[in-house]
Amino acid sequence: MIKIVILGAGNIAQHLYKVFQTTETLHVVQVYNRSAEALSYFKNTATTTNLKNLAEADIYIIAVADDAITSIANKLPFTNRLVVHTSGNVSMHELHKKNRRGVFYPLQTFTKDVTVNFSQIPICLETGEKSDFKILKTIADAIGSTSYKISSEQRRALHVSAVFVNNFSNHLYRIAHEICETNNVPFEILSPLIQETAKKITTLTPYMAQTGPAKRGDQQTIENHLEKLDKDIHKEIYTLLTQSIAKTYGREKL
Amino acid sequence: MIKIVILGAGNIAQHLYKVFQTTETLHVVQVYNRSAEALSYFKNTATTTNLKNLAEADIYIIAVADDAITSIANKLPFTNRLVVHTSGNVSMHELHKKNRRGVFYPLQTFTKDVTVNFSQIPICLETGEKSDFKILKTIADAIGSTSYKISSEQRRALHVSAVFVNNFSNHLYRIAHEICETNNVPFEILSPLIQETAKKITTLTPYMAQTGPAKRGDQQTIENHLEKLDKDIHKEIYTLLTQSIAKTYGREKL
Repeated sequence: MIKIVILGAGNIAQHLYKVFQTTETLHVVQVYNRSAEALSYFKNTATTTNLKNLAEADIYIIAVADDAITSIANKLPFTNRLVVHTSGNVSMHELHKKNRRGVFYPLQTFTKDVTVNFSQIPICLETGEKSDFKILKTIADAIGSTSYKISSEQRRALHVSAVFVNNFSNHLYRIAHEICETNNVPFEILSPLIQETAKKITTLTPYMAQTGPAKRGDQQTIENHLEKLDKDIHKEIYTLLTQSIAKTYGREKL
Repeated sequence: MIKIVILGAGNIAQHLYKVFQTTETLHVVQVYNRSAEALSYFKNTATTTNLKNLAEADIYIIAVADDAITSIANKLPFTNRLVVHTSGNVSMHELHKKNRRGVFYPLQTFTKDVTVNFSQIPICLETGEKSDFKILKTIADAIGSTSYKISSEQRRALHVSAVFVNNFSNHLYRIAHEICETNNVPFEILSPLIQETAKKITTLTPYMAQTGPAKRGDQQTIENHLEKLDKDIHKEIYTLLTQSIAKTYGREKL
């Protein structure tokens, strides 16, 4: 049995709490949050709004906004315990060194009220002391996640990569949605193509999977497309991504 | 029984041929291609390299490169028959008006040798004469596809939208792949996130699904990400898409 204290009550805190409850080996002994209201989610578990009252546990998981991590870690009223955060973009070393430090970063997009399947979520693990790695690995295993040993610098690279594949791809979907609306076409027509594009990279590298006018160097189609776009920002994005693809495939001239 | 002649021997021609063979109501009576070699794929079916020898059929499906469509349509040695093309980016009116015209455009990314499931492919239909719509609808139904009545202008909008969600998203995956390689991180870690991002838009609009620093106006994370990117073109793309997201959510200042 691993005794866990969760610090924070937001999205990730809730998702971790929920999945820990489904296991027989992970026991959340307490949830801390600065304000009491948010703690109502954590039924059947002791809660506190005072860091001084933190319970004894094997691991303290700080699941709060990036800019609040250091301040909470600094205020912890104990030393030499295992304290980890769950952020993709914060170095492990921003946790105070009075405790043993680590990172437990689930690489996924969490939406409130949407259940997530942790067996589909890779978890990036890092610890300051080698002997602490095992407990993080045990937690990841218990919730069915695949885990990877990832350094703070690697995690930072993953975090910016995630912005490209998640935030930016979604924004491209949004632009397509706008174009469809302007032209009275149901956006749902594009859904199978979106799913297939994502699925393709599980069997082909993105480099191999690339298709389209920019790769072919099909200037006529590119001009036709630019003409069809109404918004300047859409034209700019189209032009820049087309140039980048063309460059990738050695078509410098487009 | 609907008698079909396919003109062309490339990717789409092959995929349509294959799926038509699986039905009991669609009969490919002949495949035409300018060069004979490519015709070897179409076993058990009459083939020709001479437009003058085209067989009699209910519908002629031109599945060739965009810039060859008009020239083939012009050369057809008959009139008043139903002739359609399969392109997302060519107006129906580029087919010669001596025949009845239409479009049968499957909106999907086709890869050679990768079997496609037509029940997952939306087909955009258009006909010059109302009475011809039924035969296109019957063909789409026979192969299990959902079909939509889409005008040439709407199809053009869909085609450019498809570039955003397919070609451009895939290029973002490619950039993430590069960043991962530079930092010795396995790209596969990002695959669940990529799948989830695509899946999300089947239940939320892309507008609602958006997350990330650009939407939050989190300048600190944005600067941190830009610092981590090595290539200028990656920085440019990051900056432009971040600006576009910020604008979408009313954060003009980023």
